[in-house]
Amino acid sequence: MALNTTISADKNAPPITRILAEFVAGHPSRGWSDAVEHEAHRTFMNWLGCAVGAAHHESTQAAIRATQVLEPAAQALVLGSNIRVDMGNAALINGISSHTFDFDDTHLKTIIHPAGPVCSAVLALAEKLGSSGREVIDAVVLGIDVSCRVGNMMYPEHYDRGWHITGSTGTLGAAAACARLLKLDADKTQMALGIAASQPVGLREQFGTMTKPFHPGGAAKAGLMSALLAKEGFTASRRALEAPRGFAQVVSTKYAWNEITDELGQRFEISFNTYKPFACGIVIHPSIDACIQLREQGVTAENLERLDLRVHSLVLELTGKKEPKDGLEGKFSVYHGCAAGLIFGQASEDQYADDIVNRADMVATRGKVNAVIDNTIDEAAVDATAVLKDGRKIHLRVEHAIGSLQRPMTDANLETKFSNMSDEILGKDQTRQLMDACWSLAKAGSVGEVIQLATLQGSSSGHTRQQTAAAAQ
Amino acid sequence: MALNTTISADKNAPPITRILAEFVAGHPSRGWSDAVEHEAHRTFMNWLGCAVGAAHHESTQAAIRATQVLEPAAQALVLGSNIRVDMGNAALINGISSHTFDFDDTHLKTIIHPAGPVCSAVLALAEKLGSSGREVIDAVVLGIDVSCRVGNMMYPEHYDRGWHITGSTGTLGAAAACARLLKLDADKTQMALGIAASQPVGLREQFGTMTKPFHPGGAAKAGLMSALLAKEGFTASRRALEAPRGFAQVVSTKYAWNEITDELGQRFEISFNTYKPFACGIVIHPSIDACIQLREQGVTAENLERLDLRVHSLVLELTGKKEPKDGLEGKFSVYHGCAAGLIFGQASEDQYADDIVNRADMVATRGKVNAVIDNTIDEAAVDATAVLKDGRKIHLRVEHAIGSLQRPMTDANLETKFSNMSDEILGKDQTRQLMDACWSLAKAGSVGEVIQLATLQGSSSGHTRQQTAAAAQ
Repeated sequence: MALNTTISADKNAPPITRILAEFVAGHPSRGWSDAVEHEAHRTFMNWLGCAVGAAHHESTQAAIRATQVLEPAAQALVLGSNIRVDMGNAALINGISSHTFDFDDTHLKTIIHPAGPVCSAVLALAEKLGSSGREVIDAVVLGIDVSCRVGNMMYPEHYDRGWHITGSTGTLGAAAACARLLKLDADKTQMALGIAASQPVGLREQFGTMTKPFHPGGAAKAGLMSALLAKEGFTASRRALEAPRGFAQVVSTKYAWNEITDELGQRFEISFNTYKPFACGIVIHPSIDACIQLREQGVTAENLERLDLRVHSLVLELTGKKEPKDGLEGKFSVYHGCAAGLIFGQASEDQYADDIVNRADMVATRGKVNAVIDNTIDEAAVDATAVLKDGRKIHLRVEHAIGSLQRPMTDANLETKFSNMSDEILGKDQTRQLMDACWSLAKAGSVGEVIQLATLQGSSSGHTRQQTAAAAQ
Repeated sequence: MALNTTISADKNAPPITRILAEFVAGHPSRGWSDAVEHEAHRTFMNWLGCAVGAAHHESTQAAIRATQVLEPAAQALVLGSNIRVDMGNAALINGISSHTFDFDDTHLKTIIHPAGPVCSAVLALAEKLGSSGREVIDAVVLGIDVSCRVGNMMYPEHYDRGWHITGSTGTLGAAAACARLLKLDADKTQMALGIAASQPVGLREQFGTMTKPFHPGGAAKAGLMSALLAKEGFTASRRALEAPRGFAQVVSTKYAWNEITDELGQRFEISFNTYKPFACGIVIHPSIDACIQLREQGVTAENLERLDLRVHSLVLELTGKKEPKDGLEGKFSVYHGCAAGLIFGQASEDQYADDIVNRADMVATRGKVNAVIDNTIDEAAVDATAVLKDGRKIHLRVEHAIGSLQRPMTDANLETKFSNMSDEILGKDQTRQLMDACWSLAKAGSVGEVIQLATLQGSSSGHTRQQTAAAAQ
């Protein structure tokens, strides 16, 4: 019944709560390289596109209805809608929508999706405070640094234990970011981190349900509230993160304190953020990437006789579904992903709609794909050979799929991804302007323009994406 | 750096999430004994008195200020004030105030303070819904049964690991109680429990700070929100509590599933709830109890020559402070507690005010107390001998202090305790009426009368208790 585990406490941990608080409160505005600065804009834009794209999804809508019962003040926008709620609930709902398609960013070292908790809290608070774009970008970089460093400290044991690391570290990241935006001093920032430490959000058991995307939303709301409480003088343990009965030692059996302090203020974890090009599990990405490249070389559904893939064993283990029946099953089919890449040149959320999965040309093309396991192939790679009806063979090898750190999504790729999610919600023109506003956010006097452009105007749109969801992984 | 612990998952747990959901949704109204019914009223009244008593405390006031930033709708009362906020934040603030003096109830088997999370969520929601008193009492009994059974399942390993069990199980109890009040069916109640399972609140490291009372408040708010989300169709794992990566196996190394199911619906954990008679740690209670009994036998500060105590070793280890300098230090002084018992006949929050601690007669009386460790004395007991100036000796032995399960607080004791906290806030007449309204709650058509009587009228009061706090333990 009961398992015995010996937890021996580390009583001599360095004061990481204080160290992080001083860093968050004291690091200079834009105190980083151009590359970090640019990555922050990419992170923010990618997050915003995901949130707008899922604005009409059932999980977002259910959260909106639940918060309406609280009769919230119209403080902050629910992205992609014309609804405003109090900033705490805006953080919650935008955190939910941004993770609903499981299409947001990934800090690969920890599998944290860092933007959801941090950006959702920051933008809601910034709208209320009238913060400048500069302040927003500063808060995002520092908040994400906190959550990902805490993740580095505990990964993988914390994740293996069953915590959804995005939410459990996200509360801390959101609290740090909001403390920065509120201009709290180091003492109060330390309290904000302390209050947040008592509120880890997220169990892996929830994967496949709406509570998975709830995790970054709940973390955003809890982190924001922690900073507001700290501002008003609420107190917490000064060693909430590192004490023997503090956060790290309670929720993890690994706590590599040096991950908090190594190169702090010099190396920024947002540098290691990546963005998914395809709305499905990452093991399929090399295969879809290969198919898009084959399409660019002239391969079509019509001229293809057969596609032979050599893949890592995980691909068939996790995504070996030969005949998916709907969008959700399509997410677990490398065959469907390949057909989407060949026919559409992409695998966005739209390619996982039920009617697309069941379209005759998709079914036929899936049938032409043969995948076999090759133990010499890395998880990040694929070996693909297209045999055409005219007898020609085209061979391709992808070593690192698009979206990896080695072959990052270009800014143009990110814009295409954004458009694919946002065009149907906000319209093409407004989407284009919104992306431009994101790219120049640091120069904006306030977040007003971004908010205005992320607002659903009049009665446009009506498109709903309900078939798939974060349910996918 | 990293500790290795072997966590072997139990994949064959019974479906306790479902079992609890069916119980909460389906158990008949007032489906329990008169004793359970009466205990529910005692629990509710004791909780309410604690919340009213701390209405003006700095931790409550800081929380009010923080939530005002959200411009909340006037849905539910902050107890002991004339402020209304949205019901989620009312649950938060009342949960904080009810635990601020560390003077609320205790489920001794688990050291859970069960009322804070459950009653705070229930009353706020009931005010908004217009629920009947009957529905409120039903929700309280069932919600507390859920949190305490989950506690029984995991105690003591879960607590030893570092979780403040009041908040970590409280989210589930609050979600269950609110699901009942919202009349959710078993399926949706199961979802509410599932969403709540992802939000355990509370680290023991926070003891001594405002974040300790934040725990029941945060749990109340999170549980209420979980039920509201479930009502709107939000989904969670159907096995959120018992799955290998579910709540119990993530936050505890002990999970005695039978504690959930044994005598479910027959034995109610609220039966084992107790109420603190004195506003300090429980190890001092036998000594204070003895002093109050000596006072009743004619012992006074003037006629006392010397008081000899034989105590359990924990008493001096935890509360051996000979010369406390303020109220907070007074909480850690068995000597101060004895002086309060002899001079005031009680040790309520008022006896832990700084000026009382430093009063000359208190200082003098403290100096007459000698405490020695006796290994034959149980933790729940004390052996006391008062030596009077006229040479007489009065000997007393307390085997179980007042407030224990063996010698529970009487209803009259609870009323005295309530008055001591509420009179200065609401006035004596209103306090008397409020207690009457609590005793007859199950017969009330709504919670309107309780809410009206718990509201600060006009400009009465102004008394603030800021000296001590939950900081005490």
